[in-house]
Amino acid sequence: MSTTFPARSIGSAASAVAAAPVVPAHSRLRPLGLHEVRITGGFWGERQRINAAHTLGHVLGRLESEGWLPNFDRAAAGTLPAGRRGREFSDSEVYKYLEAAAWEIGRSDDAELEATLRSVVARVAAAQEPDGYLNTRFGRPGQQPRWSDLEWGHELYCLGHLFQAAVARERTRPGADDGLLGIARRAADLVCEVFGPTGIPAFCGHPEVETALAELARVTGDERYRAQAELFVERRGHETLRDIEFGRTYFQDDVPVRDAGALAGHAVRANYLAAGAVDVAVDAGDDELLGALRHQWARTRGRRTYITGGQGSHHQDEAFGDDWELPPDRAYSETCAGIASIMFSWRLLLAEGDAAYADLIERTLYNVVATSPAADGRSFFYANTLHQRVPGVEADPEGTSPRASSSLRAPWFEVSCCPPNVARTLASLDAYVATADDEGVQLHQYAPSEIRTTLPDGRVVSLDVQTAYPADGVVRVVVGEDAGGAWTLSLRVPEWADGARLRVRDAAGAVIDDDATGPGRVEVRRDFRTGEVVELELPMAPRLVAPDARIDAVRGCVAVERGPEVLALESTDLPGGADVGRAAIAGDAEPVERDGRVWLRVGLRPDESDGWPYGNRSASATAAAEEAELVPLVAYHDWANRGPSTMRVWLPVE
Amino acid sequence: MSTTFPARSIGSAASAVAAAPVVPAHSRLRPLGLHEVRITGGFWGERQRINAAHTLGHVLGRLESEGWLPNFDRAAAGTLPAGRRGREFSDSEVYKYLEAAAWEIGRSDDAELEATLRSVVARVAAAQEPDGYLNTRFGRPGQQPRWSDLEWGHELYCLGHLFQAAVARERTRPGADDGLLGIARRAADLVCEVFGPTGIPAFCGHPEVETALAELARVTGDERYRAQAELFVERRGHETLRDIEFGRTYFQDDVPVRDAGALAGHAVRANYLAAGAVDVAVDAGDDELLGALRHQWARTRGRRTYITGGQGSHHQDEAFGDDWELPPDRAYSETCAGIASIMFSWRLLLAEGDAAYADLIERTLYNVVATSPAADGRSFFYANTLHQRVPGVEADPEGTSPRASSSLRAPWFEVSCCPPNVARTLASLDAYVATADDEGVQLHQYAPSEIRTTLPDGRVVSLDVQTAYPADGVVRVVVGEDAGGAWTLSLRVPEWADGARLRVRDAAGAVIDDDATGPGRVEVRRDFRTGEVVELELPMAPRLVAPDARIDAVRGCVAVERGPEVLALESTDLPGGADVGRAAIAGDAEPVERDGRVWLRVGLRPDESDGWPYGNRSASATAAAEEAELVPLVAYHDWANRGPSTMRVWLPVE
Repeated sequence: MSTTFPARSIGSAASAVAAAPVVPAHSRLRPLGLHEVRITGGFWGERQRINAAHTLGHVLGRLESEGWLPNFDRAAAGTLPAGRRGREFSDSEVYKYLEAAAWEIGRSDDAELEATLRSVVARVAAAQEPDGYLNTRFGRPGQQPRWSDLEWGHELYCLGHLFQAAVARERTRPGADDGLLGIARRAADLVCEVFGPTGIPAFCGHPEVETALAELARVTGDERYRAQAELFVERRGHETLRDIEFGRTYFQDDVPVRDAGALAGHAVRANYLAAGAVDVAVDAGDDELLGALRHQWARTRGRRTYITGGQGSHHQDEAFGDDWELPPDRAYSETCAGIASIMFSWRLLLAEGDAAYADLIERTLYNVVATSPAADGRSFFYANTLHQRVPGVEADPEGTSPRASSSLRAPWFEVSCCPPNVARTLASLDAYVATADDEGVQLHQYAPSEIRTTLPDGRVVSLDVQTAYPADGVVRVVVGEDAGGAWTLSLRVPEWADGARLRVRDAAGAVIDDDATGPGRVEVRRDFRTGEVVELELPMAPRLVAPDARIDAVRGCVAVERGPEVLALESTDLPGGADVGRAAIAGDAEPVERDGRVWLRVGLRPDESDGWPYGNRSASATAAAEEAELVPLVAYHDWANRGPSTMRVWLPVE
Repeated sequence: MSTTFPARSIGSAASAVAAAPVVPAHSRLRPLGLHEVRITGGFWGERQRINAAHTLGHVLGRLESEGWLPNFDRAAAGTLPAGRRGREFSDSEVYKYLEAAAWEIGRSDDAELEATLRSVVARVAAAQEPDGYLNTRFGRPGQQPRWSDLEWGHELYCLGHLFQAAVARERTRPGADDGLLGIARRAADLVCEVFGPTGIPAFCGHPEVETALAELARVTGDERYRAQAELFVERRGHETLRDIEFGRTYFQDDVPVRDAGALAGHAVRANYLAAGAVDVAVDAGDDELLGALRHQWARTRGRRTYITGGQGSHHQDEAFGDDWELPPDRAYSETCAGIASIMFSWRLLLAEGDAAYADLIERTLYNVVATSPAADGRSFFYANTLHQRVPGVEADPEGTSPRASSSLRAPWFEVSCCPPNVARTLASLDAYVATADDEGVQLHQYAPSEIRTTLPDGRVVSLDVQTAYPADGVVRVVVGEDAGGAWTLSLRVPEWADGARLRVRDAAGAVIDDDATGPGRVEVRRDFRTGEVVELELPMAPRLVAPDARIDAVRGCVAVERGPEVLALESTDLPGGADVGRAAIAGDAEPVERDGRVWLRVGLRPDESDGWPYGNRSASATAAAEEAELVPLVAYHDWANRGPSTMRVWLPVE
């Protein structure tokens, strides 16, 4: 079967609406979609390649073999609930797959994937009830009634992912005749009917439908969807849902969104809700709500975020802890929470333009999203600990793992949100690289990429970004054509990049301008000529990083970073595979770069006997490290790729 | 209604079997029961008074109002499952109440309580099936079949608590005509029939029946019960139970007991199992098993125990973490795990005599068991955090709290194991004070108490222990009568008591002997005369304590202890009620004692704004504390008694 759509060529299909995950009605920065930005290789290009070549197929295979996609066939055949498999939210994984496939088709125009998407959509379509209801777990004889368990049922959550899939499809293939948008609209219409102003005065225990409805409104122009999203956001926080063991904070029903001080409760729920609330605030011009979210973002970043960008320090409820409660060994840092945090940050970046949002996105991409999938794209971390105390256990390649117990990457989970969530994120990653505004283009993430967009005044900006980042710190932005007048190229200097330099070269390579620049956003406004180059040089020397004194769990420790990457010490690299728990570094230790790796002088404490472990102050302080050796560190996102090991990001200083 | 039993008078009813919770067939130390030891006042006497006056009635009231005791009436009336309330293990709380009441009657001979016990026993008896089965949750039409959910059903666990109640009753009121022992025996006979060598080759997901069967064998002389306990212990660890999300480690079915390296999994389950395994090992003379348990105890104490003696660092599965994983803010340290740990330690103390077991018992009694109940004995901590970051919320005095979410003590929990477990522990605490052997008497815990026992050779040892411990460090042991020859008085010098002194005084008070002594066990062998005094003086100056360098979560911190009590800093005592998260102490700070409290010079860090909390090493290390003030500390067991507060045991050193 061949596709009916032309292959993507950058800049050639500049539609009114970007083929991007978030397209606000109005915002400070305008997103650039897959037709305007293409990642062409490098760190992320390789991951996108693996995502397309392996992960999508792996996910689909598991959706089939686990019975989660066949649930739709059973629904269509009228045989449910018999034989239904999977948790109450398993439908959503099918929708996340569809979203990932839609973006990937938008990126690569893969005909086989197009056929697959259409066949999956057809199976989903067949399961939809005449009134638009769609869920394989509720509403049939022998099942719980529709909307009877808003706390845990995930019905609206599942539909939210359906809507996001339809949005992705419509943005990348406007008017496609596969029926996905129609399925979504029928379901959304039902949601508006059932949960509208005079309907059930409640909402879903797992936010997601809010941002999805807002985007569906943007795609369809249907104002009801936006109003429903707003209603869902505003209803939250008034103790409407039943109390549960974890408390109503778990699903953000303890405090109204606009009154909250920081994200709290289940980390994925909190970030999805915050993302939806930004959508609502932006489209409604609700500056009070937007201000509250901006404050929550800052507070959450400042007090509830791991050095990796990861969020969530409770295993029990997959939740944020209190301020400063960031234990590395119990870091939950769910992969999906990282993705959700990127969704929240990205929306604020579009709304406000502050480089700090892109800083956190970069950190989270390199150290959470990139950490989850194995090199082959077929197994994943669900949780992302910062300190593995006991060597992990290899997951059965054919098996299904408990979600967070897997200490090594696992192919699939009982709760398997992370694999398709990673897939949809990687497949749409091009859209997070750059934005535009009236004055020009902003680069947020550095990857080899082609950018071609049209400014509101009709001028075309065309850029070729050349870089080996993060292996190397030089980012060369080559101007592809004269725009015919001055415009502004804005580049993000990451928060860690003290001592960066910005150079402008003419087409012959001669330096026109050369300035030191610091963290934040640096702008070059110029009547750029074809072949001119803006060159950002970021300092990539490895650096020691200390935690805020209020983060109790890593007091007395330092971490090593290099560029956007957090590094880790893995037992695999220690003499004799020694446990990283024995490691300590001297107060004056400094990381060095050699042979493409970062090395640090690490000592090993003797493994002592087991007396009572609390005692006289002077006695306990004298656990001297054995003679330190130079040991290579590993990028955190690469750990656990060489078999079972222990690992730690934070290294105690003697 | 009046009791048919005479009031307890110490030493007057020296039966062959001690009225004590654990009476091994043979052991290094012989337990002394409630007829041989009586706590007469002081720290623990007051808590026993409150337990009797308030806690027992509070627990019974809740058992009624929550429907957990009425479940038995419904069972007897044949109306179950309709109207059954409570979790699958709610029967066990009734049995724990009965055990507590039995001990309390043994202590105080309370006629009203005797009547109450009899009425509760009658209601339990009426619910027993003809074949001996007893459980309100399983086995009836409309309920799950008997023994169909060994992983989570808790049927044998519940029966274990029934057996322990019957043992307590029989030890304190041998031959009582209330029928409790008969109920227990009929149920135990059924257990042996169903789970015997040719029966269901499995065991209960929650250990407890092992130690209970061993004790029931000791009380009844029925060897089958002992053999069944042994069978249950030996069957464990071979992956018999179904795998669960937490893994089989949760219920100790991953590794056979004799092969385990340390306690692991659910902390209450692990300690109950270990206690039962010691019982089995001791009675069978299985030195290999006993040696394995001794090693596990040492390893667990050395690497998996909080400074309070608390155990369990996971909220999710109420479980031990890995070695050195001891986060203070996420300390679960369940009250019941502390009690279970005391049960394990006490059995090893009887078996082996090592003072270290009594040291851990003392630490756990003062800092876990004493921490749980409020001063009025009507509300309880289920979990015992070592760092409360956010002021707690007062629990509804009429309500039921989620188990571990209560940040202040709560009157009752959905899982309400802790209140009756505290009650049975306090009611039997006299039996943990002292033991005897062929040579004399050993004092393990220091409380105002009377001790009178008969040595195997028929000589009577009578002691009056006078002390204000732990308020004061002097323990005076006054000899009550001439035994007629030399015997040995052994006293424990706690592990923290460097610089203790031991004096012997004649009846006139003149010092006969005065020696420095150190931690461990100190013995005085002498032909003691009436009125002679052995006086132990323990150094009670407050002391700074540092953690082992391998406990990452409290690196760079110190705690303050005084005697057996761990102290804490509570926001209530800080200027303006400042958050303890801002506290820091100088490297040379030393605690001082003044006006009956311990004081420490504490500085407060400024509450800074929320930037990215990881950064340049030199910059982050300079969060200077404001001028330090002398602040009083509170005994950890007394915290949260003055309203919502933040609290921390471990104090960062600048």
